[in-house]
Amino acid sequence: MPMPTNKVSPISPIKASSVNHWDYETDVAVIGCGGAGACAAISAHDAGSRVLIFELASGIGGSTTLSSAEVYLGGGTRVQKATGHRDTKRAMTDFLTAAAGPQADKAKIVAYVAGSTDHFDWLVEQGVVFKDSEYPHRAIMALTDDCLLYTGGENAHPYNKLAPPAPRGHNLKVVGDNGGPLLMKTLGAKIDEKSIPVELNSRALALIVDDSDDQQSVIGVQVRIDMQERYVKARSGVILASGGFVMNDQMVKQYAPELTRCTVPIGNPGDTGSGILMGMGVGGAAINMHEGFVSLPFYPPASLTYGIFINSQGQRFVNEDSYHGRVGAFILRETGGPVYLVLAVEDYGKYETESYLNADVAATAESIVELESDLNLPPGELQATMSDYNKHAKAGNDELFHKDPVWLKPLEPPFVALDVTPGRGAFYPYFTLGGLDTLPTGEVLKASGDVITGLYAVGRTACGIPRRGEGYASGMSVGDATFTGRQAGMAASTRTTT
Amino acid sequence: MPMPTNKVSPISPIKASSVNHWDYETDVAVIGCGGAGACAAISAHDAGSRVLIFELASGIGGSTTLSSAEVYLGGGTRVQKATGHRDTKRAMTDFLTAAAGPQADKAKIVAYVAGSTDHFDWLVEQGVVFKDSEYPHRAIMALTDDCLLYTGGENAHPYNKLAPPAPRGHNLKVVGDNGGPLLMKTLGAKIDEKSIPVELNSRALALIVDDSDDQQSVIGVQVRIDMQERYVKARSGVILASGGFVMNDQMVKQYAPELTRCTVPIGNPGDTGSGILMGMGVGGAAINMHEGFVSLPFYPPASLTYGIFINSQGQRFVNEDSYHGRVGAFILRETGGPVYLVLAVEDYGKYETESYLNADVAATAESIVELESDLNLPPGELQATMSDYNKHAKAGNDELFHKDPVWLKPLEPPFVALDVTPGRGAFYPYFTLGGLDTLPTGEVLKASGDVITGLYAVGRTACGIPRRGEGYASGMSVGDATFTGRQAGMAASTRTTT
Repeated sequence: MPMPTNKVSPISPIKASSVNHWDYETDVAVIGCGGAGACAAISAHDAGSRVLIFELASGIGGSTTLSSAEVYLGGGTRVQKATGHRDTKRAMTDFLTAAAGPQADKAKIVAYVAGSTDHFDWLVEQGVVFKDSEYPHRAIMALTDDCLLYTGGENAHPYNKLAPPAPRGHNLKVVGDNGGPLLMKTLGAKIDEKSIPVELNSRALALIVDDSDDQQSVIGVQVRIDMQERYVKARSGVILASGGFVMNDQMVKQYAPELTRCTVPIGNPGDTGSGILMGMGVGGAAINMHEGFVSLPFYPPASLTYGIFINSQGQRFVNEDSYHGRVGAFILRETGGPVYLVLAVEDYGKYETESYLNADVAATAESIVELESDLNLPPGELQATMSDYNKHAKAGNDELFHKDPVWLKPLEPPFVALDVTPGRGAFYPYFTLGGLDTLPTGEVLKASGDVITGLYAVGRTACGIPRRGEGYASGMSVGDATFTGRQAGMAASTRTTT
Repeated sequence: MPMPTNKVSPISPIKASSVNHWDYETDVAVIGCGGAGACAAISAHDAGSRVLIFELASGIGGSTTLSSAEVYLGGGTRVQKATGHRDTKRAMTDFLTAAAGPQADKAKIVAYVAGSTDHFDWLVEQGVVFKDSEYPHRAIMALTDDCLLYTGGENAHPYNKLAPPAPRGHNLKVVGDNGGPLLMKTLGAKIDEKSIPVELNSRALALIVDDSDDQQSVIGVQVRIDMQERYVKARSGVILASGGFVMNDQMVKQYAPELTRCTVPIGNPGDTGSGILMGMGVGGAAINMHEGFVSLPFYPPASLTYGIFINSQGQRFVNEDSYHGRVGAFILRETGGPVYLVLAVEDYGKYETESYLNADVAATAESIVELESDLNLPPGELQATMSDYNKHAKAGNDELFHKDPVWLKPLEPPFVALDVTPGRGAFYPYFTLGGLDTLPTGEVLKASGDVITGLYAVGRTACGIPRRGEGYASGMSVGDATFTGRQAGMAASTRTTT
């Protein structure tokens, strides 16, 4: 009595023996042209391969173009040195390892850190401009054309104890939140300059495997262009750079059910997991699929950092100077009831007109007693928390959560409380962090650890450097995508030339 | 430049075309003879199939025989009725759904609840004896021969608000922690009585698939007996009942890295994930692999429930009358530093000689001020927590975490604090909850939701009713294992008779 199921299916490959003719022949086929695909294509081309890019949308850019693109790099980049930030490979390794926790892929971290300054230089060679300056504010992104900023709470507890802090988010030299578009415009210009063909409006449908070969190597891909199925032979390999699966509701529900508590998927409409599903269809292992980036982007204004997050016991539960993604991940663990951000009105601003995070103002009050009562908190709890917090703030020492003294000041009435309970309206953007298991080269692995010959996955189609919400840093995904794109482009090309 | 990997591999199947002869021919082959395998075998036999059981160990029992076997059943069993506990299918469904959270498999819950009283009756028919009585203590297991006890915190916050509480743990009529051995002895006697052959010391090596068939149906299994490979033809199907993967360190590290923070794997040495890996090898989807049961079994003595768990901020974080598994799961989330169980010495007993949980006594003190200082907690925090707790305890209302009033009493000096920080010695048993995705019939599913013809997985080889540590209840796994074993035995047998 089989029951109906409603699962997202891996996409089965096509057998080469059933392909009558090839519409395209190339060395490397790149599926998707966001940051990962663009870098894969450029690198494969530069390594001597013929490259074809197939992009689902009517323009290149992918989710990278929607991002702020604060490329996460370190270990002593040109900008880090120019701004006097001493960073080391060791410090960066320690941070990335702590951030990924038990899910850390050590080989990937080693490769990423070792190649980090080189990757910076390579981006510059492609025409990406970084100013030798820093943006010394607590912000989710730089709104000036300044470059370097802390994007992962490296300077906040607990990471500041685990590794010497250094800012590693590298914002492009552009005013406003325009790093992503500029990065992709720059990479797109390079693709044009190198005359790498890009087929837009092309939907990859299935991988093609060599069924005359026991290994079932990937040797091509079927794409749909102009309503017709076309067959692409890729002698050196297919690079899947088609994003994550945040836009596929059923797939999120099936693989990352906790993320369904968030509100706004971050990505482009093509982030439907198709690359992951094609990889799974040829035996690729999808790993860490339950994890995602989750955020409550509650700053700027940075002054909101002076506030305290409280749970329904009236307790604080995180240092509020943490990265917004870490705060989001910790809030999701507070399953006991409502969660509020409590602020002094002087730090909030005009609550009558000023709205943050799409969250409701749950209460305003002239005293903590009144606020506590209006929020229906257990009597005395918020009073105790606040009195304690203010005492520590005065002393400049948050003995509980180790918030940095620069964000400590006693909170004085009048007060305002924002309701940031997940599911009650507050803005919780999210995207997925699970994907195909790969080597640092981008080669896709079976669950056995065996490589699938001819198949590469990069960016969010793979499970890369960013592994969990509580340890995410802005720029990690664009950094990982552009870096892994390059590695896969080079790795595939070693098959072209041999 | 492929790098060495150290992954646990799915086990590839053998092609039937390469099998020269069959050493055994049967309808149904059952791999593993714990609770799940025994029930599968009995049911398949009773449905008219020829059955062969292959068991790795030199005796039957599996992990069920190591368990307390408080079979989790409800919706109005004979014992529930006799003891005056009104339980309903609706209440049981609501509890199981809340316990599994976003990971809940609704079809499985529906089937389990619908079949629950029948499953009780079936176990009785097999010779399992349950006394019409209850064990009305807060305990992890009944130490008398009484039957019914609360084993999942149904009567504690938050579940008592989400569903009318009823005890559903059914302890067998036997004194001491001997339910598991008795259950397996009883089922084993039934297997003998029915003359179902059991091959002991038999290691299943690989599934055998029909390679003449596009579907690659499972039609047998290769086993090693007496150092020789034997080929078993199973016309109706192979039922994998070989446990979870808690004894496979590398597999736990790879799939459930958070569990590596626990100390003692619970299971028999055969719980190496071989059934899951064989299922994966024929395309079965392994799901929910990151989840596990985690426990801090801090009661009995029940008097320890009068204490409070505090984190390194001196805060409480859970109602201490929760099920020990829920407490364990919540402690694992407290990643900010040490975790203590703080008690009045009168509830603890003789701390000079009495040791619990293998945990160190971190401090004893005549006052909270002294205790707080000895534990290096932020000054004032434990004092505030304790004063607040005692106030609420006096009032009989734990406004913060809703601990039941029966477990509330003001804590008075002298005090003792047990260090229960994970990794510092305290006993954290654990086992895995991820496994093959199956239909309620036990049919193994591919990631696509398609059934793998001829393959069934039951008990902890499948991902069943218990889905996450914070919502586990004792008896869920034995309940699920014996129930799903029966369903698979019956389902496979429909193929025998058609």
